[in-house]
Amino acid sequence: MAAPAATSFSISTSSSSSAVSSSTKSLKPALSSSLGFLSTSSPSLKALRAKSHSYNVSSSGGALNVRMVAAPAAVKAPMSLDFETSVFKKEKVTLSGHDEYIVKGGRDLFKLLPDAFKGIKQIGVIGWGSQGPAQAQNLRDSLTEAKSDIVVKIGLRKGSRSFAEARAAGFTEENGTLGDLYETISGSDLVLLLISDAAQADNYEEVFSHMKPNSILGLSHGFLLGHLQSLDLDFPKNISVIAVCPKGMGPSVRRLYVQGKEINGAGINASFAVHQDIDGRATDVALGWSVALGSPFTFATTLEQEYKSDIFGERGILLGAVHGIVESLFRRYTENGMSEELAYKNTVECITGNISRTISTKGMLALYNSLDAEGKKVFATAYSASYYPCMEILYECYEDVATGSEIRSVVLAGRRFSEKEGLPAFPMGKIDQTRMWKVGERVRATRPSGDLGPLYPFTAGVYVSLMMAQIEVLRKKGHSYSEIINESVIESVDSLNPFMHARGVSFMVDNCSTTARLGSRKWAPRFDYNLTQQALVAVDNNLPINMDLMTNFVCDPVHEAIEVCARLRPTVDISVPADADFVRPELRQTVN
Amino acid sequence: MAAPAATSFSISTSSSSSAVSSSTKSLKPALSSSLGFLSTSSPSLKALRAKSHSYNVSSSGGALNVRMVAAPAAVKAPMSLDFETSVFKKEKVTLSGHDEYIVKGGRDLFKLLPDAFKGIKQIGVIGWGSQGPAQAQNLRDSLTEAKSDIVVKIGLRKGSRSFAEARAAGFTEENGTLGDLYETISGSDLVLLLISDAAQADNYEEVFSHMKPNSILGLSHGFLLGHLQSLDLDFPKNISVIAVCPKGMGPSVRRLYVQGKEINGAGINASFAVHQDIDGRATDVALGWSVALGSPFTFATTLEQEYKSDIFGERGILLGAVHGIVESLFRRYTENGMSEELAYKNTVECITGNISRTISTKGMLALYNSLDAEGKKVFATAYSASYYPCMEILYECYEDVATGSEIRSVVLAGRRFSEKEGLPAFPMGKIDQTRMWKVGERVRATRPSGDLGPLYPFTAGVYVSLMMAQIEVLRKKGHSYSEIINESVIESVDSLNPFMHARGVSFMVDNCSTTARLGSRKWAPRFDYNLTQQALVAVDNNLPINMDLMTNFVCDPVHEAIEVCARLRPTVDISVPADADFVRPELRQTVN
Repeated sequence: MAAPAATSFSISTSSSSSAVSSSTKSLKPALSSSLGFLSTSSPSLKALRAKSHSYNVSSSGGALNVRMVAAPAAVKAPMSLDFETSVFKKEKVTLSGHDEYIVKGGRDLFKLLPDAFKGIKQIGVIGWGSQGPAQAQNLRDSLTEAKSDIVVKIGLRKGSRSFAEARAAGFTEENGTLGDLYETISGSDLVLLLISDAAQADNYEEVFSHMKPNSILGLSHGFLLGHLQSLDLDFPKNISVIAVCPKGMGPSVRRLYVQGKEINGAGINASFAVHQDIDGRATDVALGWSVALGSPFTFATTLEQEYKSDIFGERGILLGAVHGIVESLFRRYTENGMSEELAYKNTVECITGNISRTISTKGMLALYNSLDAEGKKVFATAYSASYYPCMEILYECYEDVATGSEIRSVVLAGRRFSEKEGLPAFPMGKIDQTRMWKVGERVRATRPSGDLGPLYPFTAGVYVSLMMAQIEVLRKKGHSYSEIINESVIESVDSLNPFMHARGVSFMVDNCSTTARLGSRKWAPRFDYNLTQQALVAVDNNLPINMDLMTNFVCDPVHEAIEVCARLRPTVDISVPADADFVRPELRQTVN
Repeated sequence: MAAPAATSFSISTSSSSSAVSSSTKSLKPALSSSLGFLSTSSPSLKALRAKSHSYNVSSSGGALNVRMVAAPAAVKAPMSLDFETSVFKKEKVTLSGHDEYIVKGGRDLFKLLPDAFKGIKQIGVIGWGSQGPAQAQNLRDSLTEAKSDIVVKIGLRKGSRSFAEARAAGFTEENGTLGDLYETISGSDLVLLLISDAAQADNYEEVFSHMKPNSILGLSHGFLLGHLQSLDLDFPKNISVIAVCPKGMGPSVRRLYVQGKEINGAGINASFAVHQDIDGRATDVALGWSVALGSPFTFATTLEQEYKSDIFGERGILLGAVHGIVESLFRRYTENGMSEELAYKNTVECITGNISRTISTKGMLALYNSLDAEGKKVFATAYSASYYPCMEILYECYEDVATGSEIRSVVLAGRRFSEKEGLPAFPMGKIDQTRMWKVGERVRATRPSGDLGPLYPFTAGVYVSLMMAQIEVLRKKGHSYSEIINESVIESVDSLNPFMHARGVSFMVDNCSTTARLGSRKWAPRFDYNLTQQALVAVDNNLPINMDLMTNFVCDPVHEAIEVCARLRPTVDISVPADADFVRPELRQTVN
């Protein structure tokens, strides 16, 4: 039992599958036994329900006035994509009652790579941003281990300063593993297009025109499809188009692969998609690519579902939303008299450290269970007030992504980086000079090694409500549980948050992919304002806890599904040093 | 001379035309004589220029790193729309050297209305939101004065609670001036479609199908065109389509008309557009409609330019941006130790009162000139740091509007007001319960009658930089000066700000049109964050004033154009009582 001071609460993630299953059958017992701050014999439940209802009615609109959800969300059958592989072993996993198919990874599978990559003599890795260096090195190392003679060659734009970095990583013109972008494309049988989204939007025609007939275009992101759709275009018909999309940023993909060399592999889970398969090779090439990257498990998606969940996710809990909520909470805590250092620890440090580690290893319910009775009450207050305000912005964001507006906005923003139509250039500004991030620098400077910060129940309640709201939006929009959990939970707590713990949230917002950086600037303030205007006002007005929401949280079938996914997690935790350098080369260049 | 403590500054708006013209010819003398905090004999100008340049170079990106503008913006010839009227008198105005054509209003022109409205027996005014009540009453009163027997009839959805309000204003079923929405459309020769944007998007097909052949559809906003364009549709070919778009909200349109009855009329300027003219009547009908509303002057635009500038403008200085900057500045002032009441007065009260009245009557330069030397320096510091951060968000907003993303976003938001796809309904929440707006309530409660608040130079610098940045974006995007000035200056200081002074910014954000309310929620936080992260950080780091920006401000030809427009301003100031009730009926209904 993970809960030191738990009273009557009986569900912990480590044994939650059956407990959750049984609790969904019989809601009332689960509710009364699950909320530690309520006496199980207390008649207050009904009263609270009634209050909660009247609170909804009396509110004059807004996210707190949403329809009360009295039962766990009815889950429409999520998309389930089946596939056939002749090289790898397809396995069925059952996530909350839904069968999904995956391929498990491992270094023992590298010997299958030559078979998966049949007909491929050269893999061109185009770009040296976030995914480029990680994927190129993992692929090269895996193929070397498999004693394959497939060449992994980096293709870069002429004059790019990334040539030096690629050379430092062992890719050289001399041995034919480094060269010009378009020459590399022309000479490759599999082209991994890992340049930025904006660069893809601006250069896709020339990229397509340089590809060999019957070669395979590999993407790590569905953005280009979204962009082509917005222009009513599609990919050329004489190539296959696949995607392998690691659910974490490049530096995590590389770091875990290196850390896991001594055990049987470690890495970041990935989704894969076969968008166009002209000769039947596409699925095994995609799976081989994913296995070579070190993905612990690979699940199927479509390019369209991928870009929707991915662009949405980084605007949500992965980056934008987490930025917005810590700004809002830091301001609240300091306005209420907390010292700046403590407020920073109780927001950023708490989320990127303690909360992330607990969710990563034990799940959200265990996090809640680890709180004492008073802590549970604070958590529930924060959760209950924040869930719908978070969902309101997430929901809007998802629909903006799904309709193409967000992709168009990214493309337009990229064009504003240069002067045009008489208006000046607007390169993206840094966000890290405001009070909060200056405090963060001081806090990290004196932080003991390995310190994961406090567990502040109010912050935990807000953060978990955001996570649950994101899960619910993706679920209602028909994404598979594999995609939902990787995009809302695993990528957050296992990939991004550990890096943010090392360097601060602002560092991530200033240094990750252009699309994510733009998205965070756009959406973080929205989460901040909605939380401040709706949730924190509700808390200050002592609006009662919405008990139905808490019941739904405890009984949500996603916990069981996360538990299944966690069993597929590598046995190594990512470790990120305080000076971890994950600045993208193109950003490094503009700093000086 | 309006500047009590001006030192060497010689430009005031009341005599600015020639001064500005001459200063654009010879920049250096204008600069040295215009910035009061610089000694005219000081050699520091060169030094400041040099500093200003190095400051730009050393910054590592962001809005403060934009290309330095060393000369007044080169103005590309703005769109100039000519038109022919056989009823009214077209006049040429020269705005900053560009000829534009307008029609002046006045109650003495009401006698021309029967001629302008030839062939029209009934005008159907559809909807009773913001523009509906104002336009219906002004039209009825003007036609009565003209002794016309044209019927103005209100059309409302069956069961609408607005029936009661329309009856209270004298429109009744008994005398045939109030009825069902679609029956009214079918029976009218001119249909003014003044229902909300979302309702237009949802009901346009049925509206079109009820219109008589050869009748005229009148809009007060180009939104519907934007929506049809996003669906690749257009208006039916057997009707004319015109627009008269008052550059102010409905309650202002009515209030000024009533206040101006004793003089020769007062009202809100309007743009007009003829989108489709099937029988040659369209222009005079549109001009008649505008004159009947009381518009002091009416200028030509297109439906497309109208919706771009209008939807953009309300997200900018009219509402969204002003909300964002006061949130940012209030937070800054209180964090720096200012009392909450004083911080509120130095932000909201200052902008909606003192600054607005001064700009309205004397212009932006006079506002600057009214400051003493120290005040001018503070103004310039704030202006210089805020101009590009404001422009960055305005520019993004304009392009999101122009590409249709913003319109799509409004339509999608409207659909989220109801439950769908298993996700709950999200009606818009109130924003007025946070600390700042509670302080505002207290401040207004004890405010002496007629008090216009302080003139706080830092706030003035930020606000005017926002106004100038909006002017520049519209200018570079090819809008006419009439449209630019009405949308960025006049509508702000003469229509919206006086209402916000009476009731607070949050009241406006909570009670104006749905499209504007959504836009303010979306964009205010963006202005807040960008100002906080870029401009205020620059001020705190003592980055030098960008002297070129100040030169451009002083020499901008827009001041002369504003001066010309101001001469067309009615001689009555709008007066808004503290209990002014401009809540839209549909919002009133949801409050209880």
